[in-house]
Amino acid sequence: MTNQLISRPICLIGLGLIGGSLLRDLSAAQHPVFGYNHSTSGARTAAREGFDVTDDLPAVLTRAEEEGAIIVIAVPMNAVGSVLDAVVQYAPTCGLTDVVSVKSPVYEEIRARGLEGRYVGGHPMAGTAESGWGASHNGLFTRAAYVITYDYATECFDAGLPVPKAWISLFADVVRMVNLVGAEAVPARVAAHDAAVARISHLPHVLAETLAVVGDNGGILAQSLAAGSFRDGTRVAGTAPALVQQMCGTNAPALVTALDEALTILTAAREKLASDEPDITGLAEAGHRARTRIAARTGARKESVSPVKISSRPVLRLHPGGDGWLGQLKQAESLGGRIEIF
Amino acid sequence: MTNQLISRPICLIGLGLIGGSLLRDLSAAQHPVFGYNHSTSGARTAAREGFDVTDDLPAVLTRAEEEGAIIVIAVPMNAVGSVLDAVVQYAPTCGLTDVVSVKSPVYEEIRARGLEGRYVGGHPMAGTAESGWGASHNGLFTRAAYVITYDYATECFDAGLPVPKAWISLFADVVRMVNLVGAEAVPARVAAHDAAVARISHLPHVLAETLAVVGDNGGILAQSLAAGSFRDGTRVAGTAPALVQQMCGTNAPALVTALDEALTILTAAREKLASDEPDITGLAEAGHRARTRIAARTGARKESVSPVKISSRPVLRLHPGGDGWLGQLKQAESLGGRIEIF
Repeated sequence: MTNQLISRPICLIGLGLIGGSLLRDLSAAQHPVFGYNHSTSGARTAAREGFDVTDDLPAVLTRAEEEGAIIVIAVPMNAVGSVLDAVVQYAPTCGLTDVVSVKSPVYEEIRARGLEGRYVGGHPMAGTAESGWGASHNGLFTRAAYVITYDYATECFDAGLPVPKAWISLFADVVRMVNLVGAEAVPARVAAHDAAVARISHLPHVLAETLAVVGDNGGILAQSLAAGSFRDGTRVAGTAPALVQQMCGTNAPALVTALDEALTILTAAREKLASDEPDITGLAEAGHRARTRIAARTGARKESVSPVKISSRPVLRLHPGGDGWLGQLKQAESLGGRIEIF
Repeated sequence: MTNQLISRPICLIGLGLIGGSLLRDLSAAQHPVFGYNHSTSGARTAAREGFDVTDDLPAVLTRAEEEGAIIVIAVPMNAVGSVLDAVVQYAPTCGLTDVVSVKSPVYEEIRARGLEGRYVGGHPMAGTAESGWGASHNGLFTRAAYVITYDYATECFDAGLPVPKAWISLFADVVRMVNLVGAEAVPARVAAHDAAVARISHLPHVLAETLAVVGDNGGILAQSLAAGSFRDGTRVAGTAPALVQQMCGTNAPALVTALDEALTILTAAREKLASDEPDITGLAEAGHRARTRIAARTGARKESVSPVKISSRPVLRLHPGGDGWLGQLKQAESLGGRIEIF
C-alpha cells in the first residue's frame, strides 16, 4: 500500500455494484467522495444511507469541475458516450477513469472526444451475478486485480513526446484510489486487457450458457441428476442477459479469437471421442495441467489461512514519470504484476 | 425412507471415494457390510479404522456367496470385467450392483456373462475431484440422486415373460440400500441414464478442460486476472485425467451427441459475435432461462435453510412386482423422480 494520499476528491457517475461499492469503500476510508445515480430512487436510497449523492448529472459534474475531482464513470457501456458528452460540457478539465469491463470501446469514445490526455482506464476484476446499488458492499475489491490502462503514455512515448505531467498525476491518483479500496493495481494496455478478459471472463459466460442449454435439453431426468459439476459449470449463466451482452457484445473481436480456440479444441475432442477407440486423455491432461498452474498462481490470494494475506502477484514499486517507469509498467503487464506508487 | 430392512449383507468390491463412503455409511447404519480393496495398503488403512475388509478377492467373494450378500462393484470401469469373472467363479449366485458412472459398458459386460437376471445397476450422483479411500466420508450421499437401472425387468416384460422374483427382491434391496445411506433412488434405464449424464456430468468436464487450456493460453496476464467465473468454470478440470477418460471415454456415443449440440450452439454464437452487430442476447437469454429452471428444481435440495430438507424430486411409492410397478418406474424416470419401496 502507498501512504501517499490521493490529491483530489472522487466523483462517481453510476452507483451500481461497482460504483456503489467504490462509494462505500472510499467513504469508509474517509476520502472525499460524492456521486450521481441515473435512477432517482437509487440515488434516494443511497442518500438515505448518508452518502453525498444526487440524480442531477449537470450539477454533479459542475461540482466535480469546481472541486477538481477525478470522475469515475461507472455506468454500462451503452451509457458511456452520453456521460462523456456531459463531461465535455460540464467538467471540461477533470481527470477521468472508468470501470467498464471492456476497454477498447471506452477508449474509442474517449478518442472520439480527444480526451486521451485526461483519461486512465480501469477495470476491477470483482463482481457477482448480482447488480445494482442493493448488491454493493464494502470490501468488494479486497485483493482483487484492478486493471489500470496506460495507453496514452505509450502513445506519447512512441511519438517522441513527453508524457504530460497532468496525465502522470492522474495515473498516480487512480493507482492510489485502487490501493485505497484494497485492490491490486495491474497495469495493462487496452488491447492486452480485452484479449485477456475474453479468455478468462467472457468465454466462461458463453460456455456456461451453452452448458445450461444442453443440460436443459436433456429434459427432467437430466435436470434431476445434475450435481456439482453442472452447478459450477453453469453458475455464471445466472448473470442477467443484458449484462452478458454488454460484456461479450462489446468485446466481440477478442472473444471470437478465444471462442475459435475453444471450438478448435472441442472439435478435435469430438473427433477423438467419435473414433473407434474414444480417447480424451490428451485434452484431460492439458486441462488438468492448465488448471493446476492457474490454481497455484491464484492459491495464495484466495486460499491462504494466514491472517496476513500475501498476494501471489509480483509487485513493482514505481515512481510515475521517473526513469524507466514505462518499461516498468510493460514489465508488470507481461507478468500480470501489481504496482505501487512511491 | 423405507422402514423395511435390506434382507442380506452387503459386500463392497473397491473402497475408493464411492465404495469407501458406502462402507462407512452402511457401517454407521449398523447394517452388516464387509469389503475388499485391490491395494493392500488401502485395505490395511480401512482395517485399522475398524472396518471388516481384506485384499483377498477370492476370499471376499467366497464369503459373499456363503452369506448370500449383495455384491457392490465399486471399481473403475476398466476393472469391472475381471471382477465379474471372479464373481462368476467365486460367487455364482449373489445379486450384483455397481456404482460405475456410465452404465452401457457395464451392462455389456453383464450381458456377455449372462448375468442380467442377477444385476441391478446403480450410479450415485455424488463425488468430488478427490478420489480414493482417503477422500471417503460419511454423508457423501445425503440427498444425492442415486440412479437405479431396471432394464432387465423391461426386457422380461417386452418378451412376455414374468420378471423373476429373485430379480425383484434384488431391486428392492438395492433401493433400500440407497435410501439407507440417505440418497434418493431415481430409476432410469441404461441408455437414458447415459444420455443424461453425458449432458450434465461429462460435457461439463470437456468444457472445463477446454476453458482451462484457452485461459492458460492467454499467458500470465490472463492468469493473473482470472477471477470467479473462470474459477467456477474450470473447477472440474482439477479431476484426475485418468478418471475423466474413464467417464468420457466409456460414454463416448452419448457424449458426442451432447458435444455436437454444444458445438452447434457455440458455432452459431461465434457467427453472431463476428457479425457487424455482435449479439449474444439469444444465447444469453436461453442460458439464463435454462439455468433458472434447473436452479428452481435443485434449489430445495441444496439451498433450503430448513432443518428438515425437502427433496425437490417427486416421490413415487411402489411395491416391486405389484400391479403396474414397471409403469410406475417409467413414470418416475420421465419425471426424474425418486422411488420408495413399501
